[in-house]
Amino acid sequence: MRAIFVILMVCFAFLSSSASEPRQISLMPMPASVQMKTGQLVIDPSFTVGISGHSDARLQHTAELFLSNLRRQTGMTALDMKMADAAQSKLVVHSERTSKEVQELGEDESYSLEISLVGAKLDAVTTLGIMRGLQTFLQLVQTTSDGFAAPAILIHDQPRFPWRGLMIDVGRHFIPLDVLKRNLDGMAAVKLNVFHWHLSDNQGFRVESKKFPKLHEMGSDGLYYRQDEVRELIAYARDRGIRVVPEFDMPGHSTAWFVGYPELASGPGPYQIERKWGIFDPAMDPTQERTYKFLDSFIGEMAKLFPDQYFHIGGDEVNGKEWDANANIQTFMRAHGLKSNQDLQAYFNTRVQKIVSKHGKTMIGWDEILRPDLSKDIVVQSWRGQDSLAAAAQQGYRGLLSFGYYVDLNWPAARHYAVDPMSGDAANLSPEEKQRILGGEACMWSEYVSPENIDSRIWPRTAAIAERLWSAQDMTDVNSMYQRLEIVSRWLDWLGLTHNSSYGPMLRRIAGLNDISALRTFADVVEPVKDYTREEIAAVEATSLSPLNRVIDAARPESDTARRFADLVDALIAGRADSDAKSEIRAWLTRWQENQTKLQPLETQSFLLKEIVPVSQDLTAVATVGLQALSYLDRGERAPSSWATQQFALLEQAQRPKAQLLLMVVPSVQKLVEASSGQRAPAQK
Amino acid sequence: MRAIFVILMVCFAFLSSSASEPRQISLMPMPASVQMKTGQLVIDPSFTVGISGHSDARLQHTAELFLSNLRRQTGMTALDMKMADAAQSKLVVHSERTSKEVQELGEDESYSLEISLVGAKLDAVTTLGIMRGLQTFLQLVQTTSDGFAAPAILIHDQPRFPWRGLMIDVGRHFIPLDVLKRNLDGMAAVKLNVFHWHLSDNQGFRVESKKFPKLHEMGSDGLYYRQDEVRELIAYARDRGIRVVPEFDMPGHSTAWFVGYPELASGPGPYQIERKWGIFDPAMDPTQERTYKFLDSFIGEMAKLFPDQYFHIGGDEVNGKEWDANANIQTFMRAHGLKSNQDLQAYFNTRVQKIVSKHGKTMIGWDEILRPDLSKDIVVQSWRGQDSLAAAAQQGYRGLLSFGYYVDLNWPAARHYAVDPMSGDAANLSPEEKQRILGGEACMWSEYVSPENIDSRIWPRTAAIAERLWSAQDMTDVNSMYQRLEIVSRWLDWLGLTHNSSYGPMLRRIAGLNDISALRTFADVVEPVKDYTREEIAAVEATSLSPLNRVIDAARPESDTARRFADLVDALIAGRADSDAKSEIRAWLTRWQENQTKLQPLETQSFLLKEIVPVSQDLTAVATVGLQALSYLDRGERAPSSWATQQFALLEQAQRPKAQLLLMVVPSVQKLVEASSGQRAPAQK
Repeated sequence: MRAIFVILMVCFAFLSSSASEPRQISLMPMPASVQMKTGQLVIDPSFTVGISGHSDARLQHTAELFLSNLRRQTGMTALDMKMADAAQSKLVVHSERTSKEVQELGEDESYSLEISLVGAKLDAVTTLGIMRGLQTFLQLVQTTSDGFAAPAILIHDQPRFPWRGLMIDVGRHFIPLDVLKRNLDGMAAVKLNVFHWHLSDNQGFRVESKKFPKLHEMGSDGLYYRQDEVRELIAYARDRGIRVVPEFDMPGHSTAWFVGYPELASGPGPYQIERKWGIFDPAMDPTQERTYKFLDSFIGEMAKLFPDQYFHIGGDEVNGKEWDANANIQTFMRAHGLKSNQDLQAYFNTRVQKIVSKHGKTMIGWDEILRPDLSKDIVVQSWRGQDSLAAAAQQGYRGLLSFGYYVDLNWPAARHYAVDPMSGDAANLSPEEKQRILGGEACMWSEYVSPENIDSRIWPRTAAIAERLWSAQDMTDVNSMYQRLEIVSRWLDWLGLTHNSSYGPMLRRIAGLNDISALRTFADVVEPVKDYTREEIAAVEATSLSPLNRVIDAARPESDTARRFADLVDALIAGRADSDAKSEIRAWLTRWQENQTKLQPLETQSFLLKEIVPVSQDLTAVATVGLQALSYLDRGERAPSSWATQQFALLEQAQRPKAQLLLMVVPSVQKLVEASSGQRAPAQK
Repeated sequence: MRAIFVILMVCFAFLSSSASEPRQISLMPMPASVQMKTGQLVIDPSFTVGISGHSDARLQHTAELFLSNLRRQTGMTALDMKMADAAQSKLVVHSERTSKEVQELGEDESYSLEISLVGAKLDAVTTLGIMRGLQTFLQLVQTTSDGFAAPAILIHDQPRFPWRGLMIDVGRHFIPLDVLKRNLDGMAAVKLNVFHWHLSDNQGFRVESKKFPKLHEMGSDGLYYRQDEVRELIAYARDRGIRVVPEFDMPGHSTAWFVGYPELASGPGPYQIERKWGIFDPAMDPTQERTYKFLDSFIGEMAKLFPDQYFHIGGDEVNGKEWDANANIQTFMRAHGLKSNQDLQAYFNTRVQKIVSKHGKTMIGWDEILRPDLSKDIVVQSWRGQDSLAAAAQQGYRGLLSFGYYVDLNWPAARHYAVDPMSGDAANLSPEEKQRILGGEACMWSEYVSPENIDSRIWPRTAAIAERLWSAQDMTDVNSMYQRLEIVSRWLDWLGLTHNSSYGPMLRRIAGLNDISALRTFADVVEPVKDYTREEIAAVEATSLSPLNRVIDAARPESDTARRFADLVDALIAGRADSDAKSEIRAWLTRWQENQTKLQPLETQSFLLKEIVPVSQDLTAVATVGLQALSYLDRGERAPSSWATQQFALLEQAQRPKAQLLLMVVPSVQKLVEASSGQRAPAQK
């Protein structure tokens, strides 16, 4: 019910004070309550911010950071827009108290923002609420006929979940600090508040350890963060109201540790940094006291480096093969009544949990760590789903959802958006149990990302996940989400995110030419294959040494063009398409039909284009089918069923992945054929 | 003669070993000698670099930096492409000795690069030559049908001039360190070797001074570089073979000094940081010993901070008004027989030169410092021209040219390219005198640049100036220059320069919308007014507080679209246009004709678009004229002279600047009218 109210509100146009043109606001995540008023507050170089109530250096810095973003967004100079006395300021920021020195889970992030024709007031309990409210203010500033302006409005807002995260895996591919920083800017913009830093895996150990230097010296190929860099990133995150939770995956996913310290492992060694992807045998030896001694010392060091209360120990995907093959471990298991590898891992987790706890931290791990014998204060991060989360909550464990939020799987934003931590079994939990579901995290596993394309895998889709975790559960209008997502996506450009800007240079490299119009037409309608299909259908096994410069690496996870084309076709079939829409459909199909001819000359010049020849040919063939179907529809003539059957076969073939790419306009063309022939395509197997 | 040889060579296509498609190389600046061979060297993840001969940490770092650029350019991962033993390496780098610890003017930058089907060898005397050669190598790497590859080639190369600079004025608008760094990357890519850092002016004093902290504390609005940041930038430049020459402008252009230290000035004070542009009265008092005591101490501090041998004291544009108004100064002048303010400034310069010299540095200044009584070891930077430079050389002074290289004047690249330091009177100098002409510097004065648009003012046009200063004097083919400039421009995207990527976001801000196609069509064919016209015709005086978010700030200094359209029209009129070219002309004109209709809805929504309405209307009107002329030409019918006269009047009006913008397609449409009517347009006043 509340969602309906909110959606109505935001679809309300607001009239700027003198222009006749109505404008819409585009907030993402949508606040809990929005009331539009009449008129707007003009934002010009004389705009000022003042602090009333509580004030300290951090709040001051928060306001300065806001002004610098606002200047960038509006193209003001560094001399425009200043801090001023609250009494004279256009925007008055008022909070009751500072947020915690080390940001805590569940701190108050609520705020109220009231903007009138003469000024604005932002109220919050803590500095964190001020940070969230200032981001809302930035999103409200628009170019209008009277200058930059924010609409008169009254917003009351607070997050639905206290844990709204983004995990970035820097183990499989090292991601440099500046790339992480710009992604933290993106996180702050959409009010995410936890950066989960997956710091070690089979392919790399990425943090400098002073106590065990062979971890980073031998386990990272020289690609690691110095401790001062870690501190720099944590400070950067803190300035944006983001906690940093480190993850050191154990006892599996830990080959990189064993290169320098093979004595930790359950196998005979020696070990090399893993270059392939997948699940590997090496695992820590849970039966040796030296393992816990090492971990005690290591976790002690890292617990000091990372101030956050939570410490992630991974704990996922141990295949147990090294344990099975180790006679000492088998003896130990028998001696301690450990009946399975799961029991052995539970034993390990119990020991590790005590160490983590000894160093003042709360343990968090993936689903697999959950065993009834573990202390109730741990947190479970579920890649398995809401039912698993609900089961944990019923047992008294807190949890967060990552199932459905894996952005490396190349799902459309709408699919992530539809995943709710409180659905499935979680919907039936008691209020007390529901409290244990803390939120969720988008996860960027990094088999196929580089500094060049990682932003395009995270953004803009993660903004939709951020909205799911911040906004009301019944915010489910996908059209509204996509409309706002498009605006947020372009808005993130200001923050230096490269999800849009890296596309052209990547395509230019692939083409080997400056003129990439034909390649762009092609790349705009393909998507990388979904889920783990890239690995499954790879002609050559990919490793951490494989260049990420193919069309699949440049193509967007979600084709906006295909989605818009699908909307047009749906409107046409429903009889809702006007003549503009009809000619747009025809124009697209014509362009795609002609594209292979334009792309062909490039294909002979670039090795990176060879693999897409069949897909490009498919695009031309599919567009030809679409145009034929359109002709039948235009003439009001029913297409012969034999023709339709033939086209369905062609489309079925075109829908199969080639070059690990999916041609995203096929389903829409299929609908055109169905509509023109009155015949349904045979169901796909 | 040599140029003809070179041009022939580079227009030679090279055949890749298996593909039938010929490819061209695009080097900028063009090397002194290029010989194409047959075949190519494939560059894949196994590519290695080895060092033979002299080796040290700096050379090692140079090679690492090269590999990291090469990886970025080819989309390789951080684990691909390694340093290796010279004997096993694909590219062997050999130098005789390291370059100087502090890079010196005139150090050997020559290199030879030989690439064969199996490997490459880069030879140079010093590390500097290696740096230059590695940049050439990067430019040679292309996407081919067989993989990334560099053509088999033999290059011998050395610069024509030893001083090839870019000046950036950070006084008028502060330019943050990261923006300078990416511009240093751009400089290195086109082999510029001097970053001239204009660090103080009336509008700001930008370096932390430990001895005189009120300089940066009171003279910078808080926008200055800490000394550790200065050192960081100098190290960054050194890694790229770039010297850093600081400029502290005196005795004029120094209001910002006087805010904290009014006792240095010739007027009564107090002083404020200047917000306006132009020439101002405040000047140091050359008659007070305290001035020289201050400068001795200050220059001593800065001479240590900036290791380069050269120290720039500015010395330009003293209007003398404060001197005229100061009775003590007048008395001093009479007492010392100084007949004019020029004499007084010469006295000042002689004193300052001694201080600079005492601190081990060589003085450099703008034209005005040149007076016969100054020591011969100074260097004169000429904004006045080659004749002034020649006169200095004849008097025994060394000099460099900046006249003709002011990139803030929004000239087309071809105009800068045509300016040669050795033309005019300089052409007639003796060989010994010619030696005194050290080179030149592109100058980025910063009245109208921000971190957002500065790259678009510097690049790609500065690459053409870089070629002028590096390559042979008879490299004057403008078509070849533009062809290569376009490729270099896109290539600079890899280095993080934002001259291309910032255009879309700026236009989106102006439009207040994501869909900017109509605005882009418009912005693509306008240019900011040239020279100092922006100031001269401003409706409201611009200051350092003026936002730089207007169409003039986003529009490129040189419209590629208008230049290409002009080429098409020239071909048409010369009877060289094929049917593709003809339909392209028509397509452009039709698009422009329709553009105002598309732009209109935006204009009511954005205050930033209001000013361009008349220019957009002109574009539509001019395109309509062009289409009419085209119809006459198509029909082979002579257009009536009365019609032509009317169109000339319309075009004359459309050619006048509006919103400080020039509509760049007008001259081409005028040619079409002339051609269709057999009538010349009346000469412009």
